[in-house]
Amino acid sequence: MAHVTATGYDPRTHAPLTFHDAARRFQAGDDTPRDYLERCLATIEEREPVVHAFAHLNREGARAAADASTARWAAGSPLSPIDGMPVGIKDLLETRDMPTEYGCEAFRGNFPRRDNAAVWVLRQAGAVILGKTVTAELGGAHPGPTTNPFDPRRSPGGSSSGSAAAVAARMLPAALGTQVGGSIIRPAGYCGNVALKPTQGGINRGERQVTSMSTHGVHAGCIEDMWQVAIEIASRAGGDRGWPGLDGPSTTPEPARPERLVVLETQAWDDLDESSKEGFAAVLDQLRDLGVRLIGRGDDPLVESLECAVGDARNVCNAITGWENRWATRNLVDQHPDGVSERAKEVLAAAEAMSVDDYRALLIIREVAQEAHAALADTADAIITLSCPGPAHVWLGDRPGEPLHPRPTGDPVFNLPSSMLFAPAVSMPLMSVAGLPVGVQVFGQPQQDAHMTAVARWILGAVAPVVVD
Amino acid sequence: MAHVTATGYDPRTHAPLTFHDAARRFQAGDDTPRDYLERCLATIEEREPVVHAFAHLNREGARAAADASTARWAAGSPLSPIDGMPVGIKDLLETRDMPTEYGCEAFRGNFPRRDNAAVWVLRQAGAVILGKTVTAELGGAHPGPTTNPFDPRRSPGGSSSGSAAAVAARMLPAALGTQVGGSIIRPAGYCGNVALKPTQGGINRGERQVTSMSTHGVHAGCIEDMWQVAIEIASRAGGDRGWPGLDGPSTTPEPARPERLVVLETQAWDDLDESSKEGFAAVLDQLRDLGVRLIGRGDDPLVESLECAVGDARNVCNAITGWENRWATRNLVDQHPDGVSERAKEVLAAAEAMSVDDYRALLIIREVAQEAHAALADTADAIITLSCPGPAHVWLGDRPGEPLHPRPTGDPVFNLPSSMLFAPAVSMPLMSVAGLPVGVQVFGQPQQDAHMTAVARWILGAVAPVVVD
Repeated sequence: MAHVTATGYDPRTHAPLTFHDAARRFQAGDDTPRDYLERCLATIEEREPVVHAFAHLNREGARAAADASTARWAAGSPLSPIDGMPVGIKDLLETRDMPTEYGCEAFRGNFPRRDNAAVWVLRQAGAVILGKTVTAELGGAHPGPTTNPFDPRRSPGGSSSGSAAAVAARMLPAALGTQVGGSIIRPAGYCGNVALKPTQGGINRGERQVTSMSTHGVHAGCIEDMWQVAIEIASRAGGDRGWPGLDGPSTTPEPARPERLVVLETQAWDDLDESSKEGFAAVLDQLRDLGVRLIGRGDDPLVESLECAVGDARNVCNAITGWENRWATRNLVDQHPDGVSERAKEVLAAAEAMSVDDYRALLIIREVAQEAHAALADTADAIITLSCPGPAHVWLGDRPGEPLHPRPTGDPVFNLPSSMLFAPAVSMPLMSVAGLPVGVQVFGQPQQDAHMTAVARWILGAVAPVVVD
Repeated sequence: MAHVTATGYDPRTHAPLTFHDAARRFQAGDDTPRDYLERCLATIEEREPVVHAFAHLNREGARAAADASTARWAAGSPLSPIDGMPVGIKDLLETRDMPTEYGCEAFRGNFPRRDNAAVWVLRQAGAVILGKTVTAELGGAHPGPTTNPFDPRRSPGGSSSGSAAAVAARMLPAALGTQVGGSIIRPAGYCGNVALKPTQGGINRGERQVTSMSTHGVHAGCIEDMWQVAIEIASRAGGDRGWPGLDGPSTTPEPARPERLVVLETQAWDDLDESSKEGFAAVLDQLRDLGVRLIGRGDDPLVESLECAVGDARNVCNAITGWENRWATRNLVDQHPDGVSERAKEVLAAAEAMSVDDYRALLIIREVAQEAHAALADTADAIITLSCPGPAHVWLGDRPGEPLHPRPTGDPVFNLPSSMLFAPAVSMPLMSVAGLPVGVQVFGQPQQDAHMTAVARWILGAVAPVVVD
């Protein structure tokens, strides 16, 4: 199954943009943060007209920040290992020097001139905040203009569409995304990035605390940059209010070979394309050959119990989040009836048909699922499953006169379990199917972010990427 | 000890404004919501020039809402038992028809034209949103212009200063407040109101989800109105995201005599004035005479354990909340250096001296205290203590050239335990000291809001108010 297809992506040869290896060059004087930035800007110049990853760019602010970083490296006093790293910020997070428009017409021109806590501390660490990346409207399903860097007819995934595409197109080494249902890990899967969706509460969301299963997370070209960005933020701004926050070593955890992995099918399995199943089986075969014990739903009743507990994750997660966003969306629709998509209005209508008791019942279902997950703590090091339901689909827009496509940025069905379980998840670019990326993820018990990163790092080093036609 | 003093407040004769008893008059046609409102407006006209309870009033909007309510009552179809109730909203909560200025210069004129979830559902229940009540700046310690209705030289408490004073001055039957440390229960104690600070997460805070121990709550003239407002909100908008929310009967719980009460001293006891100690002892004597078993710190090691666990509540709570507000306040101060008080800047400076590890340690201390509280679940029905450290103090403003008074709206020291423990608390107007109200509170295990209301209702019916010189 190891042959290259005609289109863009081959995980064996794709060279992502990385930053962690630049420090040595900066120290030696062979490279500077300003030069690094200019290379990013050149790539943006070349690819942005088709990829549309950015809602806003702050070229001059970034150049000034990169020059300051260049001076710090020259003086031997960088603020952190990511000093000088160009970073993109999903346009749901406030930034003091660029508008924050949430991918939503109603917020066109919104410019609060504040920094989200994570953005604030990224600047403290010396990072260069280069641009705001496109988000699906309000972090929901209604897509922005971003295209998949490996095939412009296809979706990059969402809602962190621009962050995923900018990293995949080598415009940036890292970008912040956010996930409520599947908005970090799915686009990482579709775009061939490494990505971390931390434990719920892991990274301080600042002003964005309104839903109960949203997290900030990181897209990057490599696992070293992914971890470094996450830990530089969390060590300064901590987690969400009331949570301990992401914790772990100050540099990327060493690779850790898992003894046992639970293989999760999720409710999506029956609908998955055969090529993706074939590719995933080939990944699992390699793990088995490497001595990792794989435990599926037929092997252990606790695994079957978890499959069952997350078996309706789509309805559970959508309804919980819909209810939690209900009043904010209602206010917005009332103020700007034409500034919100019909898709968002459909979600609002469903939420407004719910009662408090409906919501309470869903919280209990979620807690039961979390208990089923906790019960697996001694069974395996982590859970492994796909990051996305096969390769990204063709998306050319809604067709006039036809019903709205329910999921134009793709189906979060493989992502909802880790969201619902508050579990840390890492996506790995381990497969291509029909010339497009398909990610594989590991996720684990809450607060095991560092261990998941260590496991993912081992897998990335030990498993050869799989290519399926 | 039962003789009336010279100044304003006598709990035996003070007649608070109530609404629950108006329904019969509305049904009989002897009264209407519009007439009720006009009486409130007349009281406001009379008292507001000295009390300064309101940041904004929407007289015409309220009249229109009261007229609509009048029509519903006349048609025999009120939306809820609080249809037509004039309600004040603390000026930290967004309202679509009035500005939201947070008691802060930097937000002068801020008018987001959105309704907080609780405000939204109050309107759905037919309540008349009459005005925004003064809050201490940003819900912190820097006071607004509100005076104590029983002595204008004295503080009404804070940060829900205007809500407390408006109810105490009979301008309104009920008003929403919020509490992070002691901002609902303390002003209720200083103003002689009944008030509920629900279980953490009990009432949907809508857009105000940034700190981990803040709740919306209710000030009212009587416990029936207090409960009705709370349950009408919670049954429509639920609790905070991820929490089950306040639950209980659709009308005020029947009185419930407690078998046993834990008497909590808190770290404030040694500094408490002798008159307040004397008054509280007289309340406890009555309870003992009524057959309630009182359990103090010397009687049970679990009580001593809780006293110890909340013994540093002031530092723990202040630091947790300071950290959680840190980035929002920093953005605000950077944007509006002259629009934020020196008091708030001092709080910010303390927060900016903290590390993530400091914050994590404080969360653990809070969890340990919650465990010490949970361990008392079988020991008593509730905890009883004062709502405030004696009567409200004289507050005539900071003195030029002297250090800023650290707590111009009073000391939350009796309120921090229930905040830190996420416990539902009800304040009862059971005492006057030197002619000023001093509240007594009961608080209990999380989610026991209805039971605390039932216990408070029994105490209010069974215990004669105590008057001390």
